[in-house]
Amino acid sequence: MKQWTMKTTGRANLELAEVPIPDPAPGEILVKVTSVALNYRDRLAIDEGLTMIFPDDGPFVPGDRVISACLPGWVDGPGPGDARMGGPEALGSGHFPGVLSEYVVLDQEWAVRAPAGLSDAEASTLPMAGLSAWTALVDQGRVRAGQTVVVLGTGGVALFGLQIARAHGAEVIVVSGDDAKLARARGLGAAHLVNRRTRDWVEAVYDVTHDHGADHILETVGAHHLARSIEAAAVGGHISLIGILEGYEISGHVAHLARKKLRIDGLQVGHRRALEDLVRAADRIPLRPVIAAEYALDDLPAALAHLERGAFGKVVITTT
Amino acid sequence: MKQWTMKTTGRANLELAEVPIPDPAPGEILVKVTSVALNYRDRLAIDEGLTMIFPDDGPFVPGDRVISACLPGWVDGPGPGDARMGGPEALGSGHFPGVLSEYVVLDQEWAVRAPAGLSDAEASTLPMAGLSAWTALVDQGRVRAGQTVVVLGTGGVALFGLQIARAHGAEVIVVSGDDAKLARARGLGAAHLVNRRTRDWVEAVYDVTHDHGADHILETVGAHHLARSIEAAAVGGHISLIGILEGYEISGHVAHLARKKLRIDGLQVGHRRALEDLVRAADRIPLRPVIAAEYALDDLPAALAHLERGAFGKVVITTT
Amino acid sequence: MKQWTMKTTGRANLELAEVPIPDPAPGEILVKVTSVALNYRDRLAIDEGLTMIFPDDGPFVPGDRVISACLPGWVDGPGPGDARMGGPEALGSGHFPGVLSEYVVLDQEWAVRAPAGLSDAEASTLPMAGLSAWTALVDQGRVRAGQTVVVLGTGGVALFGLQIARAHGAEVIVVSGDDAKLARARGLGAAHLVNRRTRDWVEAVYDVTHDHGADHILETVGAHHLARSIEAAAVGGHISLIGILEGYEISGHVAHLARKKLRIDGLQVGHRRALEDLVRAADRIPLRPVIAAEYALDDLPAALAHLERGAFGKVVITTT
Amino acid sequence: MKQWTMKTTGRANLELAEVPIPDPAPGEILVKVTSVALNYRDRLAIDEGLTMIFPDDGPFVPGDRVISACLPGWVDGPGPGDARMGGPEALGSGHFPGVLSEYVVLDQEWAVRAPAGLSDAEASTLPMAGLSAWTALVDQGRVRAGQTVVVLGTGGVALFGLQIARAHGAEVIVVSGDDAKLARARGLGAAHLVNRRTRDWVEAVYDVTHDHGADHILETVGAHHLARSIEAAAVGGHISLIGILEGYEISGHVAHLARKKLRIDGLQVGHRRALEDLVRAADRIPLRPVIAAEYALDDLPAALAHLERGAFGKVVITTT
Repeated sequence: MKQWTMKTTGRANLELAEVPIPDPAPGEILVKVTSVALNYRDRLAIDEGLTMIFPDDGPFVPGDRVISACLPGWVDGPGPGDARMGGPEALGSGHFPGVLSEYVVLDQEWAVRAPAGLSDAEASTLPMAGLSAWTALVDQGRVRAGQTVVVLGTGGVALFGLQIARAHGAEVIVVSGDDAKLARARGLGAAHLVNRRTRDWVEAVYDVTHDHGADHILETVGAHHLARSIEAAAVGGHISLIGILEGYEISGHVAHLARKKLRIDGLQVGHRRALEDLVRAADRIPLRPVIAAEYALDDLPAALAHLERGAFGKVVITTT
Repeated sequence: MKQWTMKTTGRANLELAEVPIPDPAPGEILVKVTSVALNYRDRLAIDEGLTMIFPDDGPFVPGDRVISACLPGWVDGPGPGDARMGGPEALGSGHFPGVLSEYVVLDQEWAVRAPAGLSDAEASTLPMAGLSAWTALVDQGRVRAGQTVVVLGTGGVALFGLQIARAHGAEVIVVSGDDAKLARARGLGAAHLVNRRTRDWVEAVYDVTHDHGADHILETVGAHHLARSIEAAAVGGHISLIGILEGYEISGHVAHLARKKLRIDGLQVGHRRALEDLVRAADRIPLRPVIAAEYALDDLPAALAHLERGAFGKVVITTT
Repeated sequence: MKQWTMKTTGRANLELAEVPIPDPAPGEILVKVTSVALNYRDRLAIDEGLTMIFPDDGPFVPGDRVISACLPGWVDGPGPGDARMGGPEALGSGHFPGVLSEYVVLDQEWAVRAPAGLSDAEASTLPMAGLSAWTALVDQGRVRAGQTVVVLGTGGVALFGLQIARAHGAEVIVVSGDDAKLARARGLGAAHLVNRRTRDWVEAVYDVTHDHGADHILETVGAHHLARSIEAAAVGGHISLIGILEGYEISGHVAHLARKKLRIDGLQVGHRRALEDLVRAADRIPLRPVIAAEYALDDLPAALAHLERGAFGKVVITTT
Repeated sequence: MKQWTMKTTGRANLELAEVPIPDPAPGEILVKVTSVALNYRDRLAIDEGLTMIFPDDGPFVPGDRVISACLPGWVDGPGPGDARMGGPEALGSGHFPGVLSEYVVLDQEWAVRAPAGLSDAEASTLPMAGLSAWTALVDQGRVRAGQTVVVLGTGGVALFGLQIARAHGAEVIVVSGDDAKLARARGLGAAHLVNRRTRDWVEAVYDVTHDHGADHILETVGAHHLARSIEAAAVGGHISLIGILEGYEISGHVAHLARKKLRIDGLQVGHRRALEDLVRAADRIPLRPVIAAEYALDDLPAALAHLERGAFGKVVITTT
C-alpha cells in the first residue's frame, strides 16, 4: 500500500512509499483509510475518516465506518500529562502513526463510529477542526441560545464554530478580511459579517451587541490579537485559545480581563467522549462540514499548496 | 467628623477634612468606621470594617458589626456591566464614596455582617484582599484537598490565599524573594518555600510536585510574569489574574496554555454572596487575617509609606 | 380600575373589585397590565406582560414594555431563604401583590424588558412557564446539541421545554395521552411522539434512543411518576422536578438512580438573571409561546374552566 | 492459594477453596492481596489493598503497593452504560473477579497506587467507602469551607464523609442512635452530635445552623428517610444518595425540593480519576480510615457477623 512518510521534520522531506499492509495485534483494528482532512501545522495531518475492514472482536464489526480520536489515551476529564510536557501526544506526532496512508492500524480504543449522515470526506474533518470548535463552545463554553459568538476568519475551526453556535441558538459574528468569504459565511447562518479591513471589528462587535460584547470568542489568531478579543468580550465572557499557533507569544491588557472577569481557556482539540458527543450531535443537527477541495493521495503537494493559499473550510485527501 | 478626601486623582492631593456627619436616607445605614484596610492602588482604600450605630429598619440592628461589599450592585453571578467599561464600580472609585472617614453612609444592601471571631481590624481586610483570594480559589477554582496552590509574595491576597487553600486541604508553595517573610509563611502553614532569588521557582514547583505542577496559581505579579505561571501550572491547571495591575500588559506562550488546557480567569474582587460565604467560613475555620501594622486615621501618610515599602499582610487604619 | 382579589385562599372567593389606581413610591413603577398568563395552582396567576406608563427615573422609560420576575428578591445564584421555609415568595403569593388587575405597582428591580418580537400575550407567558423550562434545561441542565429531551404532556412548561431544547440542537420526545395534541407538538418540532395510552413510554424512550435513554426529563407529573422518569433517564441523566405539584409525595427506586448517577433538581421557576437570558434568547431564536386562548379580565372564571379542562399551551387574560 | 468463592448468590454458599495462583496476560498484573475491606451487600467485598509482586512492563514495578478501582472501565466523566442497565459492573459482581483471595490478577488499568502514609488495611478502605464519600462531597458537591455537612450513622462512608468534609473546612453534624459512637465521632472532628433517639434530628440541624440547614447530606439510609433529609437541607442544598440500598423505594415531598432548589445525586462509588484524586489527598491531609476490626482470610464468617452487628468504621480481612 501507499503511505506518505516524513523522513525528518518538515514538509520538504515527505515521501510517498510503497509499504506492506500492517497486521493488527489483539485489540487493534486494521482500517482502510478513505479520507484525511489536512491541518496546516508541523504535523501535517491528523484528522481522518476511515472504513474498517478487518476488525478484531471488539466494539466494531467489519464495514463499520470510523473516525479516530486524534489524542489517543485521553478518554475524558483533564486527561494524562504533566506540567513540563503538557497533555497527550497526537496521532501523527511521532509517538503515534499518522494516517496519510491507504491502510492504518489503530487501537480500537482510538476509533469512534462515524456519523451516518456525513460522507467520508466530511466525517474526516470532525476529529480535529470539528472537535476543537465543539470543545471550545460546548464543553468549555456551554454556549446557549441568545448568546453572541465571534469567529475569526473562515478556516475549518471557524466554520465549525459558526455552525455549532447556530445549532445552540447563538448568534454569530464572522470577522474576515475577504468579502467573498463573508458572503459565503452568511449562507451558513452568520448573523453579522465584519470586514476587518474596512472597519474596526471590536467596535463592530460593540455596535451589533449594543455594548454587551461577545460571550464567546474562538481566538484562532492568537499572539497580540488576543488583546483585541479581550476588548471585544462581554462581562463574564469566554475566550478559547485554539492551539494551532504554537510558539507564538500571546499578550493583552489585564484591566479588561479583570473588570470583565473574562475566562481564557487553552484548548488541545478535545477528548474521546467529547468526540462521541459531537458525532451524536452530527446525527441530529444540520451540521455540514465545509470541504474546500478534495485531492488524491498522490496529490498531497497540491493539497498543501491549496492550504497555504487559505481555504474556505477544510482541504481533504481521499484515497478512493 | 474627620474624613480623607482626594481632590484630584493621586495621593499627592489627599486632604484630611472636618465634615458633618451625614444623614442616612431610607434604606441606608449610618456606620461608624473603626478600621479600614489599605490597598496599594490608585484608589487608595476600599476595604473596611465598621460598627453600625443608627441603622434603619432593615436587616441590621444598632450595634451590629458590618463590613462592606466593595462592589455595590454586584449580588451574584456575572453581575452588571458592559463590554466597553467592564463590571461594577467600586467603593472609593469616584462613583461611590470611600471609607477613610469616621462615619460613612451605606446602602444597607452593601453591608454584610462581620465575622464574630475577628477583630474590627481583621474583619476590615476581608472585603478586598480576603474576597479576592476566596473568589480565585473557591468560586472560580473550586480548590480541593490534595491539590497544590502557588502564591506569589506575601501580600494581603497571597496570605489569604495561603490560609484559604490550607483550609480546603490543599498544599501551598509560597514564592518570595525574602527569606524572613518565607519563614513567617511557614508559620501560617506553607508546605514549601521558594526563594526566587536563589532558585528558579518554576523548576522548584516541578520538583516538589514531581512534575505534576500547580493546580492553582494566584498570579498577583502579572505582566510578563504570567508566562512563568503558565509554565508552572499542571495539566488542567487554573491561573487567577488578580486585578491589581491595571494598565499592564500580560503575555505568555500559547503552547503550554493549549497542551495543558489551562484556564486563566480575570478577577474583580468578588460579589456579595461570595463575601457572605467567606464570612460564614471565617466563623468556622482558623482564618487569621495578617495585620502588618495599624495606624490612626491621621497617620495615613505613614501607613501609605509602610505599604510602599512592602508589608507582610495588610496595613490597616483604625479610627478608635 | 378593576382588580381580582382573593378574599381567602381558594378560587371560590375570587372577587372583581373596583379600586383606585395605586401611586408608585420612589424606586417603583406604575405598570399598565395588558396580559396575564394563568398557572393552575393555589396561587392562581403570577405571570404577566405589562406596558409601563409612569416609570420613575430608573432603568425604564415611559412606554417600555416589561414583564415581571415572579420571585422578587432573587437576583442570581442560590438566592434568599432558609431551610424551614425555602426560597423567596412569589408575586401573588400573599407577600407580594398579584397582577390580575388593570394597573399594578412594581419595584423597578422586579421588572425585565419584554422581548421586542413577542406580543404582550406571548411575553406574559415567559416569567413562569417559559422560565421554568429555561431554568431546567439551560441553567441546571446545560442542554446541548445531540442530546435527547423528554417532555411530559403539552402544557405551558412542556411546550416551552420542547422549543428551548430544539433551539439548542436537542431532539425531543413528547409523551401525551392525546393524539391530536401530539400531532400539534410535531408541528413545533418534536422528533418523536409517544401516546402513553397505547404504549409504555419508557420502553419507547429506550427504543428511539437505542437504549441510551433521556438526557433530560422535565418531570411535570411528579409523585410516583418520578419512578418512571428514573427508568427512562440515560447514564448521567438529569431530571427536573418542576415545582407545581406542591404537597405531593415523590417516589422512585434508588437502584437506577445510583447505577445511572442521575441528578434530580428541584426547581422554583428561576432567578431574574435567567429571565433576562431567556428574553435575550427570545430576541434571537424562533421561540413562539403557544397561547391556547385569550380571555378578557372579566372572564376569569371561563379562563379557569378552560385551564381545568387541559389546555395546549397557555391560557392568557388580556385587559385591552 | 486460598480463595473464597460464591457458588451461587448468597452468603450461605461461600466456600474457601485451594486454587492455583493465576497467570497474568500481557497488560495484566499479578497482585498479592494483603487486605480486603468488607461492604455489607449482596456482593460481599469489592474494596482491596494489594501488594504487587510480578507486574508486567506497565506503569507499576514489583513491590508497588496498589489498590483497585472497583468499577473497571470507568475512567472519568459519565462513563459507560445504558439506560436499561446503568453504569459499569463492579469487581466481585460476577462480571469481574472478587478479591477475597491470596492473589488476584488485575488489568493494570484497574490498579491505582496506594497512599504511602496508610497501612494496607487502611488503604483497602479507600476504593469503595472512601471514594463514595469523596465523590459525593468533592466531585458532585464541591464542598467548601464554612458549609455544613450532615452524615447519618457511623459506618464507613459516614466516617470518611466526616473526615473529608473537615479537611475542606466544613463543619459536620453526625446523626446516630448510639451515644458511644457519637462520642467517638467527636474525636474525629464532628462539630455537632445528634442522638436521633432522643431528639428530632432535622430540628437539631435547624437549631445548630440557625435555620440555614445542611448544605450537603450523605443520605446513607435512603427509602422514606430521604423525606427527612429533604427537610433538613439548606436552600441550594445537595443530597447524595449513596448507592447501597438497592431495591428500596425512596420518597419525599416535592414542595421542599422545589422551594429550596435541592439537588439529589445518585452515586455509584466513583471513577478512577476521582480515586487518584483521593489518593493524592490522602498523601497530604490527615485522613485516617477507621478500622473497626481486622480478621484473617479464614475468619470471613466472623467478620461478616461483626459487620452485621454494626461496626464503627470498616471491617477488614487481612491475609498476612
